[in-house]
Amino acid sequence: MITPLLGRDHLDHGGLERLIEHILAGGVHGLFILGTSGEAPCLSHELRRQVVTRVCRQVAGRVPVLVGITDTSLSEAIAIARHSADAGAQGLVTAAPYYFPAGQPELIEFVRLLVPELPLPLYLYNMPQMTKTQFDPETIKQLVDIPGIIGLKDSSADLRYFGQLVEVAKTRPDWRILVGPEHLLVDTMRIGGHGGVNGGAQIEPRLFVNLYEAVKRNDAARVSELQQRLLKLGAIYRVGHHASAVIKGMKCALSLLGICDDTMAEPMRKFNAPERAKVRAVLVELGLVK
Amino acid sequence: MITPLLGRDHLDHGGLERLIEHILAGGVHGLFILGTSGEAPCLSHELRRQVVTRVCRQVAGRVPVLVGITDTSLSEAIAIARHSADAGAQGLVTAAPYYFPAGQPELIEFVRLLVPELPLPLYLYNMPQMTKTQFDPETIKQLVDIPGIIGLKDSSADLRYFGQLVEVAKTRPDWRILVGPEHLLVDTMRIGGHGGVNGGAQIEPRLFVNLYEAVKRNDAARVSELQQRLLKLGAIYRVGHHASAVIKGMKCALSLLGICDDTMAEPMRKFNAPERAKVRAVLVELGLVK
Amino acid sequence: MITPLLGRDHLDHGGLERLIEHILAGGVHGLFILGTSGEAPCLSHELRRQVVTRVCRQVAGRVPVLVGITDTSLSEAIAIARHSADAGAQGLVTAAPYYFPAGQPELIEFVRLLVPELPLPLYLYNMPQMTKTQFDPETIKQLVDIPGIIGLKDSSADLRYFGQLVEVAKTRPDWRILVGPEHLLVDTMRIGGHGGVNGGAQIEPRLFVNLYEAVKRNDAARVSELQQRLLKLGAIYRVGHHASAVIKGMKCALSLLGICDDTMAEPMRKFNAPERAKVRAVLVELGLVK
Amino acid sequence: MITPLLGRDHLDHGGLERLIEHILAGGVHGLFILGTSGEAPCLSHELRRQVVTRVCRQVAGRVPVLVGITDTSLSEAIAIARHSADAGAQGLVTAAPYYFPAGQPELIEFVRLLVPELPLPLYLYNMPQMTKTQFDPETIKQLVDIPGIIGLKDSSADLRYFGQLVEVAKTRPDWRILVGPEHLLVDTMRIGGHGGVNGGAQIEPRLFVNLYEAVKRNDAARVSELQQRLLKLGAIYRVGHHASAVIKGMKCALSLLGICDDTMAEPMRKFNAPERAKVRAVLVELGLVK
Repeated sequence: MITPLLGRDHLDHGGLERLIEHILAGGVHGLFILGTSGEAPCLSHELRRQVVTRVCRQVAGRVPVLVGITDTSLSEAIAIARHSADAGAQGLVTAAPYYFPAGQPELIEFVRLLVPELPLPLYLYNMPQMTKTQFDPETIKQLVDIPGIIGLKDSSADLRYFGQLVEVAKTRPDWRILVGPEHLLVDTMRIGGHGGVNGGAQIEPRLFVNLYEAVKRNDAARVSELQQRLLKLGAIYRVGHHASAVIKGMKCALSLLGICDDTMAEPMRKFNAPERAKVRAVLVELGLVK
Repeated sequence: MITPLLGRDHLDHGGLERLIEHILAGGVHGLFILGTSGEAPCLSHELRRQVVTRVCRQVAGRVPVLVGITDTSLSEAIAIARHSADAGAQGLVTAAPYYFPAGQPELIEFVRLLVPELPLPLYLYNMPQMTKTQFDPETIKQLVDIPGIIGLKDSSADLRYFGQLVEVAKTRPDWRILVGPEHLLVDTMRIGGHGGVNGGAQIEPRLFVNLYEAVKRNDAARVSELQQRLLKLGAIYRVGHHASAVIKGMKCALSLLGICDDTMAEPMRKFNAPERAKVRAVLVELGLVK
Repeated sequence: MITPLLGRDHLDHGGLERLIEHILAGGVHGLFILGTSGEAPCLSHELRRQVVTRVCRQVAGRVPVLVGITDTSLSEAIAIARHSADAGAQGLVTAAPYYFPAGQPELIEFVRLLVPELPLPLYLYNMPQMTKTQFDPETIKQLVDIPGIIGLKDSSADLRYFGQLVEVAKTRPDWRILVGPEHLLVDTMRIGGHGGVNGGAQIEPRLFVNLYEAVKRNDAARVSELQQRLLKLGAIYRVGHHASAVIKGMKCALSLLGICDDTMAEPMRKFNAPERAKVRAVLVELGLVK
Repeated sequence: MITPLLGRDHLDHGGLERLIEHILAGGVHGLFILGTSGEAPCLSHELRRQVVTRVCRQVAGRVPVLVGITDTSLSEAIAIARHSADAGAQGLVTAAPYYFPAGQPELIEFVRLLVPELPLPLYLYNMPQMTKTQFDPETIKQLVDIPGIIGLKDSSADLRYFGQLVEVAKTRPDWRILVGPEHLLVDTMRIGGHGGVNGGAQIEPRLFVNLYEAVKRNDAARVSELQQRLLKLGAIYRVGHHASAVIKGMKCALSLLGICDDTMAEPMRKFNAPERAKVRAVLVELGLVK
């Protein structure tokens, strides 16, 4: 989930409420907040805590809330983890610490130090484009028996790597291996993945839920139809440049849907009129706006 | 297509013949030789010429043969291009020159210098993992009007980038935008791609041809069934490590199918018995070997 | 300056006092705290504030204190900047925001948003190994007229880049261009640099001050003698592996000198006995320990 | 040594002769041809052979000639090695194969396969910016006992790495560890390096030879004076952009000195008038041109 903002450290409260209800109405199985799309590293810690509190309060147990605690400081990660437990979240998610490029032994040490301090179960989050390191399959092999970890979200967009994770995690049937890039939801489920944590699901949640279910019951016709709609929606990610283009596209779309403001965390800037028009055209084609 | 070898600069002639017939029997629409999977940069220029000659002679016009001419030297690229035309090939393919990391202006200059010297139409080949640079969409915009270029193969595995290429190439309806990573064949076709240049197609060509045709006629059930088989086949790529694991997996599979030897171009080494057993297990599951 | 620690978020108070007095006794012209060597990203914000307060109180104006405010969140960077001004610091230092890889336009936007909010003058800090981006010379050209910025620290170890910065900054004779890697102190001063922010100066500050002064008065014999000693000291950086080896070497040396503890911020670990013995051997050779 | 060109695959014969005599007159201890600065990967194999033949013939044993044989194909590397031996060269130099990013085991395999085929002793060449991999110190430890290898040239510009190499190579007192980036010549010699393979030495060879000798006899005043001149000369590298700027600067300077043409291997382009004027200004300041 993105973080709806009106300005620096200024949450769009109404937007946040509408966004949550919009997503839950679509039938999703959980909410992941304060991840990459949530621009979490760009928000103050105070604002992150606010987001956790407000989301948990509003969701009120209707679905599990997972909170991104990724930080360069173990203490700050633990602090937000504790706040999340107090606020009523159900799980935590962490990528690798991301200032110093972590070697694999440092990654293992990091996870082993972190998990005993956490009040909630943890998902690992593989995001090499941002953290300059990946959780090697060999590393996961050494972490897979830690009871406090219950799965992994992979945003590498590397199907080969995903398949290796599935293999490594076979000793933990309770683990959930989830995929970030939404166009890979179907294919990763077919090679043993358990679902997706996909940004597009906040724009049209029902689409993603239906697709997930169609894959589960192996309804090829429906999978095909929904995947094609998902791919059309993906055109909003191709409007901008830079690493932030995907988030800008999502926020712009949500703004056009009347759900929340599209202000970005600084120093990133929302789309101007020409880009906005392109995002609008995609939504019009999909019948999401007129 | 991989290059079947018996040793250093020693072509597996029988294997090459069987491989070509195996692929053509599957109904593919063309052959791309001397690309990344062909280990072209690791082969001597003499051997590359041999491969071109033998492939063109045996294919004998049944399908177009495209020859990879990627080189760090413009002269060597042109030399193999001329040899290819003489041998009867139908098209050429070039990635960026790959020793010095090329800036985008240097890429444009490179293409503008190369094309007038070529006796055959050219496909560009985006392969940033190997060449340290990509053909930016803005760069393609500046190259798209050159008549001697007729398309692009993208092996970045980045669907967002692929979609941007499709957009940029709209002024050239004769261009063909083809995808490298095979699990993206269906999705790229659905966002405007024209087909794939997929390594797995040499193992089970009919599977890929059928999948292509099923997408064309929008036969969802068939697409789903074939895509699932394609994903199962993909397990052979996850057996090894390093950048060369995909080629090793393909050569090993072809060896297990009795088609050709799996010797790698040095310094790469073919799979040992344990990896071979894993590849075999995949082929057994698919009914390709007993 | 490194941050002396006894454990997680547990400052080594005695060590910090001894370290500051040790450094100031050596005649340095300023202190840079909470940079990369200070492991700032790994410390809690509360601990960072503590470090600022204690350092400023103890230095008590004897030399300027510069505080690293690098953060992925503009708000958090501004918060520590304000705290630094209140505590009596004289300057601030920021690298690029480092989760999302910033494009050059985003870097410019970042600096333009940040500077008006800062209560103290700012140094930019070029650290591409950690931030995945550099301040391009063209970017500096667009920032060089902002009065609130007074210089740049470059840790790229790229002398060619450093020379380009010196060129770009010629319109700002009040700017100070400082170098991070200490073996480049002499050479960068000779091509227009103004000094160094060098980790080794906390181990043997007089050495670096003497070297700086010898370069200023162009005393070749003394420069040569001191540079050779500086290079011998540099052997402590080659003991470990990973990006953290340099910090581990410095902390280990300071521990062997009896100045402070060598506990690292988690998940990094201090050197074990074998590495410690190697660092000790270097210090013995230099006559710093017996 | 750069490769003087008049056009594509068109050697500047007069320029080559003048360049060799200019360099030898300066008292250098050897010539390294067909390296990165020689643009070797951009030249046809035929032209590379011509360069070897002509250089060896003209040098005629006055100093050792080392030939770069770096190639993506082991066969082509061996072919140019044999040609070099026949032509009268004294040594060979190879970087890692550079299309597929080589893992460390593949690097070891590569060297072990290559060395027995070589008719001349070999230097390794560490050039990670171009080859996407470095020779790890642990890898060198496994190669250091191979008699056919006699040293290493390091162009990483990483003094910490260089020091680790020196340590690893201590079991081979006959090895020569040479540095690429010329501003590090003095410092690397002081930590155990044996000399440099420096592009600037073809512009003003006597400067580099004198500097080498001044370091050997520890003449601080002379080292200081010459190093300052070396740094002033280095301004020619900062004129251009892209990875090729250093080569363009050298070729432009040699052209201004009347030694040879500054045509670059395609697709790179020589400096235009404004850049040329900047290079000229540097040479004027050094009294090399009027």
